[in-house]
Amino acid sequence: MATPVSPLAPATLPTLPEIAGVRLATAAAGIRYRGRTDVLWVGLDAGTAVAGVFTRSKCPSAPVDWCRANLAGGEARVLLVNSGNANAFTGRKGADAVALSADIAARAAGCAPAEVFVASTGVIGEPLDATRFEGVLPDCAARAEGGAAAWEAAARAIMTTDTFPKLATRTIDLDGVPVTLNAIAKGAGMIQPDMATMLAFAFTDAAIAAPVLQALLAAATERSFNCVTVDGDTSTSDTLVAFATGKADMAPIASADDPRAAAFGAALEDLLVELAQLVAKDGEGARKFVTVRVSGAVDDASAKRIAFSIANSPLVKTAIAGEDANWGRVVMAVGKAGEPADRDRLSISFGGVRVAREGARDPDYSEEAASAAMRLPDVEIGVALGLGDGAARVWTCDLTKAYVEINGDYRS
Amino acid sequence: MATPVSPLAPATLPTLPEIAGVRLATAAAGIRYRGRTDVLWVGLDAGTAVAGVFTRSKCPSAPVDWCRANLAGGEARVLLVNSGNANAFTGRKGADAVALSADIAARAAGCAPAEVFVASTGVIGEPLDATRFEGVLPDCAARAEGGAAAWEAAARAIMTTDTFPKLATRTIDLDGVPVTLNAIAKGAGMIQPDMATMLAFAFTDAAIAAPVLQALLAAATERSFNCVTVDGDTSTSDTLVAFATGKADMAPIASADDPRAAAFGAALEDLLVELAQLVAKDGEGARKFVTVRVSGAVDDASAKRIAFSIANSPLVKTAIAGEDANWGRVVMAVGKAGEPADRDRLSISFGGVRVAREGARDPDYSEEAASAAMRLPDVEIGVALGLGDGAARVWTCDLTKAYVEINGDYRS
Repeated sequence: MATPVSPLAPATLPTLPEIAGVRLATAAAGIRYRGRTDVLWVGLDAGTAVAGVFTRSKCPSAPVDWCRANLAGGEARVLLVNSGNANAFTGRKGADAVALSADIAARAAGCAPAEVFVASTGVIGEPLDATRFEGVLPDCAARAEGGAAAWEAAARAIMTTDTFPKLATRTIDLDGVPVTLNAIAKGAGMIQPDMATMLAFAFTDAAIAAPVLQALLAAATERSFNCVTVDGDTSTSDTLVAFATGKADMAPIASADDPRAAAFGAALEDLLVELAQLVAKDGEGARKFVTVRVSGAVDDASAKRIAFSIANSPLVKTAIAGEDANWGRVVMAVGKAGEPADRDRLSISFGGVRVAREGARDPDYSEEAASAAMRLPDVEIGVALGLGDGAARVWTCDLTKAYVEINGDYRS
Repeated sequence: MATPVSPLAPATLPTLPEIAGVRLATAAAGIRYRGRTDVLWVGLDAGTAVAGVFTRSKCPSAPVDWCRANLAGGEARVLLVNSGNANAFTGRKGADAVALSADIAARAAGCAPAEVFVASTGVIGEPLDATRFEGVLPDCAARAEGGAAAWEAAARAIMTTDTFPKLATRTIDLDGVPVTLNAIAKGAGMIQPDMATMLAFAFTDAAIAAPVLQALLAAATERSFNCVTVDGDTSTSDTLVAFATGKADMAPIASADDPRAAAFGAALEDLLVELAQLVAKDGEGARKFVTVRVSGAVDDASAKRIAFSIANSPLVKTAIAGEDANWGRVVMAVGKAGEPADRDRLSISFGGVRVAREGARDPDYSEEAASAAMRLPDVEIGVALGLGDGAARVWTCDLTKAYVEINGDYRS
C-alpha cells in the first residue's frame, strides 16, 4: 500500500522477548500482494493451551468457523495466518480451503489438523487458493525461531491497509516466577467492537488451563478491543486467539480463583488495551486519536452505547478532523443513542476544556482553549450526563478524506 | 455555501400551484447568513388543521418541544421557519427565544402564540436572537402570497447545506373534488430516520380533521422519510408538519374509515417519498443515489434493520463512491446487523446484476455488467436473504471526500 504511515504511529516499535515454546516464520506465498510477506507460521510446543474470541457477525468467515469448532479441544500446535484474502463468503470452497490449509500445516508440524488455528484477512468473497501454502509451510516449520526480528516480521506479514505493525509485550511476576506475554495485531478499517480488530494473537509462557485462559481473554477483550471503533463496520473475520505454552517454571493456573489468575488477567488486559489503541491510531486515514469518556449514565452499558454513538458519528468524526470543537454534534450523538439522557443536565468537554454545561454553552467557555485542545493529535471528548453512576470510555479516530480515498479505491 | 449543486439534482423544479388559505413570504433577517433569505413565513387561514412528526432524539431542540406541546390544539395560523441557527441545546434561553418568536409572529398574524408553529435549522448550541424577527415578520404578513414563485422562495429560505431547493406537488380527485398537496423540505447532513429530514412541511386545501391528518402523516412518514439516511446521524430538530386549510369544496374527512382518507394518505405518502428521495439526492457530497432493497428476511422490521445496516456502512458507501461492485462489504453489513441471516443462502445484486448467490460468487457473474451498473448515477443494491417474506427498501447516497470536506469545515 502506498498510504503514508499514520502520524499517530509510535515513534519506535517495542522489542519483543522470546517466549519458550513459540517459534515464528513468515513467507511470501503470492496470495494477493507482490514483494511482501503474506503468510505467518507460528509453531507451538505440545501442551499449549488455547482460547479465542471471535466476530459476532451473522456471516462469519470460514476460518472463524474452523477456529470456533477446534477451540473445544483446548490445545494448539500451529497458528497459520495469511493476509491478502479473507476467505470469507466463499461458500463450500471456503470451508474446503481452510481444511486444506490446516492439513498442509498439520503435515508440516506433525500434528492433527484440529490443532491448527487458521486466520485470514484481506478481500472478502474471493476464493483462497490454499495450495499456495504447500510450497512455503514445510520451510516455515524448519526455520521458525523466537527472536525479536521474528516477532516484528510476524506483525508485518499480517498487515493489510495497516500503515505500521502492531506489537506489545509485558513481563510480570507471578509468585516469584517471571512470565512473559507478547501480542501482535492488525486492524485498519472495518473496525467496530464485537470484535474490534480483524486479527490479534497473544502468546505467553504461563501455565494456565484453557478454560481459565478463555475466561480471562473474554473479560480482557470486553475492556480492550470491544472499546474501539474506526468506522462502525464489523468484519466477518475478527479473531483474537491466545496461546499459553506452559513453559514457565510454575504450577499451572487451573482455576479462576487462583490469585495468580487475576494478576495474569490484568496484564493481559493491559497488553490488549495497548494493541486496541494502536488499532484506532492506525484507523484508515486517521489523523487524530480520540478517547470518548461518558460518565453519569444510568448504568455502564448505557454509557458504552452513548460513547459508541459519539465515536461512530460521521459528523462528530469529521468535526474532529476539522479541529472543530463542535459540541452541538456531540449533543446530537447523545440524543440519537436512544439511551436515557436529559438535555438540560449535559456537560461536554474537549481535552478537559468544558464547553457546555446544564444544557447550554458554558458561560466560562474559552473558544481559544477548546481550539487548542482540538489541534493536539490526541483528543478527549468528555460527556457527563448527570443521571447516575454509569461510565464508559471508548477509542476511535477522526474521519478524513483519506478514509474515503483508501476505501473507494481498495478493490478496483 | 460555495458547494456546487448535486449532480443528482432534478433538471427542473416543479411549479407549485396555489393552495387556498396558504400565503408565503420570505425575508433576510441576517441570523447567520449574509446575502440570502433565512426566514420563511407561512400565514394560514383560520380553521387550518395541523399534524406533526418529530425527531426521536432524546435531546430535541427547543422548537421541537414547542411544536409538540401545541399540536394538541389541532389548529395552526402561522408557520415560522428560520435557517442558520437551530436553536438547539440552548437551555432556558432556547425556550425563551421560541416563546418570543411565537409571540412576535402571533402579533403579526393576529392569532394566539399557541397557533404558531416554529422550526429552526442550522448551527446547534448557539443562542438564537429572536428579536431579529421583529423587523421582518409584520412585513412578511402583509406581503405573503400563494403563487409559484413564493413556493420556490420558501423552499430556498429554509436551505442550509442543501445544494438545491426541494419541492413537490400532487393533485388528486376526492369524490369529484380536486384537492392539492404541496410540500417543501430541506435535508443535507445529519440525516437518519426517526426522522430523516431536518425540516419538511406539507400543505393541502383538503378538509380533514387533525387526528385523521396525524394518523395519515405518521403512516406516510414511516414509508418515506423514515426510509432514508445520509450519514446515520439524527438531528435534534427533525420536524415534519402538515397543514390542511379545509378550503376545498368538500365535506370534512372526520374519520380514518372515510374511504377518502386512504386516497388522501396515498397521495401524501407519494409526495413525501419524492421529497425523501430528493433529500438523499442532496446528501452532503452525494454523487450517487442508492436504493437498498432487502427481501427474504424473517419479517419487515428485520429487513429494514438490515437495509439500514447496509445503507449506513461507511465501507459500502465508499465502495459505491468508487463505483466498485464490492459485494463482500454488503455481506459484512448484513452480518453486522445482528438480524437473522444465513451466509450460505444470501444473494446480492447491483443494478439487477446478480454477483453472489448461495454464499459465494455467482458463477455467471459478469464483472463488466456489474461495473457498468455501478457507473450509473442511480445504484440499486439488492439483497435476498432466503429466510422468509420480510422486505424493505431504503434510500441513501454514497460517502465521498466532499462529505468530509463539507463537515470538517462547516463551523470553523
